[in-house]
Amino acid sequence: VLKAGICATDLEILRGYMGFEGVPGHEFVGVAESGSFAGRRVVGEINAACRACDTCQRGLERHCPHRTVLGILGRDGAFAEFLALPEANLHPVPDAVSDDHAVFVEPLAAAFAILEQTSVVPGMPTLVLGDGRLGCLCAMVLTNAGASVVHAGRNPNKLAITSAAGAKPLLLERGKKLPKSTGKFPLVVDATGDAAAFGHALEAVEPRGRLILKTTTNDPPTSSLAPIVIDEISIVGSRCGRFEPALDALSSGRIDPAPLIHGRFPLEDAAAAFEAATRRGALKILFDVATR
Amino acid sequence: VLKAGICATDLEILRGYMGFEGVPGHEFVGVAESGSFAGRRVVGEINAACRACDTCQRGLERHCPHRTVLGILGRDGAFAEFLALPEANLHPVPDAVSDDHAVFVEPLAAAFAILEQTSVVPGMPTLVLGDGRLGCLCAMVLTNAGASVVHAGRNPNKLAITSAAGAKPLLLERGKKLPKSTGKFPLVVDATGDAAAFGHALEAVEPRGRLILKTTTNDPPTSSLAPIVIDEISIVGSRCGRFEPALDALSSGRIDPAPLIHGRFPLEDAAAAFEAATRRGALKILFDVATR
Repeated sequence: VLKAGICATDLEILRGYMGFEGVPGHEFVGVAESGSFAGRRVVGEINAACRACDTCQRGLERHCPHRTVLGILGRDGAFAEFLALPEANLHPVPDAVSDDHAVFVEPLAAAFAILEQTSVVPGMPTLVLGDGRLGCLCAMVLTNAGASVVHAGRNPNKLAITSAAGAKPLLLERGKKLPKSTGKFPLVVDATGDAAAFGHALEAVEPRGRLILKTTTNDPPTSSLAPIVIDEISIVGSRCGRFEPALDALSSGRIDPAPLIHGRFPLEDAAAAFEAATRRGALKILFDVATR
Repeated sequence: VLKAGICATDLEILRGYMGFEGVPGHEFVGVAESGSFAGRRVVGEINAACRACDTCQRGLERHCPHRTVLGILGRDGAFAEFLALPEANLHPVPDAVSDDHAVFVEPLAAAFAILEQTSVVPGMPTLVLGDGRLGCLCAMVLTNAGASVVHAGRNPNKLAITSAAGAKPLLLERGKKLPKSTGKFPLVVDATGDAAAFGHALEAVEPRGRLILKTTTNDPPTSSLAPIVIDEISIVGSRCGRFEPALDALSSGRIDPAPLIHGRFPLEDAAAAFEAATRRGALKILFDVATR
């Protein structure tokens, strides 16, 4: 492992999500020790499928019921000097992509997954709720795809980063609903990580519109699902994505996630790193594990 | 009004849903007093749109923000001798369709809405949760569309009705989860009317599968939405449907809802009728208002 990033899921895992015990971490760039990519920089898809069951045969390896998931389910993760993944999971990193950029491939791929799940037409009014790490990447990817993105969050510094990338910032007051003047959108992304935000996200979806759900939390939502039925809304759960579009966007410079880097820690200071990642206003915290 | 039916939404409205005050009731067959259909039997779409705003211009009249809804929002409903609806909402009832059948057009159209929202391939494993009035109609419509339907509910008498129509019954114990052996389905319909059932419905959807949500309740769900994200599930809210396929299915005899009729009351006995509709195991309660 060269570098690894702390993700909101890692923080949820520390609070018991998935009941995971072991080494957390699933965002990384490293150097392959063996196999066809030996000696090359690689990033790795985090779901290790059995590739034999019915689900895998149908091309749904990410949903293999026998899968392990790096740092999340039955497989030690990336906050370590070494990790193990099947060779089929690895992607070599082009020279044009720095280590600092490559460590974003996994979360950036998760943001690009939205484009696999819904069609975005140029100028499409789109609301991204949540200015955490994933919310910012979603706002960047959707802006880059041509959507007219309103990015709603509580931290002006974070919104300034996506604003520089072309999104329109909407600063929210803590605990307050979206202002009525925000209007309704055919496409809304909930990347808040907050169960209570789901109701606000729903209210912002126009009838027959679509809500992409990125938030994973153990808490049930605090509001009724009735608006889904009344307004015939579709909710689309969105998790991991293919690495290719993310590597391509980084390689071509279309997306630059570097402004999201907020702090760097050695592995020895893991507790301090996690504390920094938990602090309000924190963006991406990286572990600098090794240099080539 | 010749006949009117009591729907789960009417019972929710009595408990405060939508804050409606006025005459409830939105399932009816009647005789037009005036206009092009004067003297003919008609059924009526319940959403009365302004037909002028942007939403209406886009063909989404059912979602017109200025709409009234028969017996639900700003417009007195069908539990009366007369009701008023715009002529554009009315559909003449073919002679082949009896009054008892015609009163089911509105809820049957809501069940047919599923076929507008998702494609059903022959033999597609489908789970319908809930053996209330709408759940039974959904099971009938999906079976008739060629799906291989498992109909899960708590009332053996109700399940016997849809079983006769070709669904496979699954009797559930009250408050118990679906048995593990039920398996996972690419298509699940939640028509339970119970916020607590949403989590059970989610668990029965296979990865990348689809959950059609028919349940409208003011209560928030009791379980986390995380499985939507982890299994990349789509939730599709489903409300009203076009009347044409329902009238066609009744006219051709492909669907026979008559076994769902559970009791008949005159308007004068409204309190007893509502009490009967609320009783556990109740199916469709009709008001016999007039005869031709």
